[in-house]
Amino acid sequence: MENTMVKMALDAWYGTVKRAEALLEQLTDEQLSMAVAPGRNRGTYLLGHLAVAGDHMRTLLNLGEALHPNMVEAFIRNPDGPAVDAFTVSDLRNAWKTVNADLNDGFSKMKAEDWFLKHNSVSAEDFAKEPHRNRLNVLISRTNHLNYHLGQMAFLKG
Amino acid sequence: MENTMVKMALDAWYGTVKRAEALLEQLTDEQLSMAVAPGRNRGTYLLGHLAVAGDHMRTLLNLGEALHPNMVEAFIRNPDGPAVDAFTVSDLRNAWKTVNADLNDGFSKMKAEDWFLKHNSVSAEDFAKEPHRNRLNVLISRTNHLNYHLGQMAFLKG
Repeated sequence: MENTMVKMALDAWYGTVKRAEALLEQLTDEQLSMAVAPGRNRGTYLLGHLAVAGDHMRTLLNLGEALHPNMVEAFIRNPDGPAVDAFTVSDLRNAWKTVNADLNDGFSKMKAEDWFLKHNSVSAEDFAKEPHRNRLNVLISRTNHLNYHLGQMAFLKG
Repeated sequence: MENTMVKMALDAWYGTVKRAEALLEQLTDEQLSMAVAPGRNRGTYLLGHLAVAGDHMRTLLNLGEALHPNMVEAFIRNPDGPAVDAFTVSDLRNAWKTVNADLNDGFSKMKAEDWFLKHNSVSAEDFAKEPHRNRLNVLISRTNHLNYHLGQMAFLKG
């Protein structure tokens, strides 16, 4: 049963990442630099935001130190703004790719039961009371977050 | 472990529905009738689309017959168009509410193990080979679908 549950959550994650990758391949750097809708975030901001969200998942899941700590200020702590322009579209595409490659690598080394261990931002005391606050829950939540923004980035298509 | 898994997936579903409801309460009927971005679906189309997706989940999960079969043509089989205008915003808000109330009711009667039974669009033969094609997988997938469109509908806010 554990295996089945982990497969479902991983399938949902990988399926969403695949759709995001297909969209990113389809978009030119110029398209990615546009706002997804008038007055809304630029594609570049959302791409950086998703890369940092993935990076944050790595640390929550104990897969390693953050790969892109220099992106947190511009893409998580603040809304879209001039700080984003310090990163080229190519930087952002690469950050997204390296974070996902690293997640794939980390996930492939996890056994099914590892997903039911506590993640790094819940205390042992709270986890004893709330065992659903595990690593698989982080993955489910990040998959939903990715879908939320993917629906928005799809508007960049011509 | 089954209980934990079901709780995670249900928490994700209910959390997303709650965010959708908060957004819908915030939007006027006039705002909901606008395109979410230039040249994209109207909020009314997406609301109907999500209501029918929920209705379809009911039948996949064996919770009952479709409540709104008359909406499938306009909101699932076709893109946004004149057929949508046969429904008032109030019709669509009600369809969304009745489907979700009915889902809540159905979910509350399911035991944890019921979620690991096969859903109604997979054959017994295929399910024997692919046990992840269960009811919980449908819920996970619909939650992601809801998030995808919720990210778009958020653009209707002023």
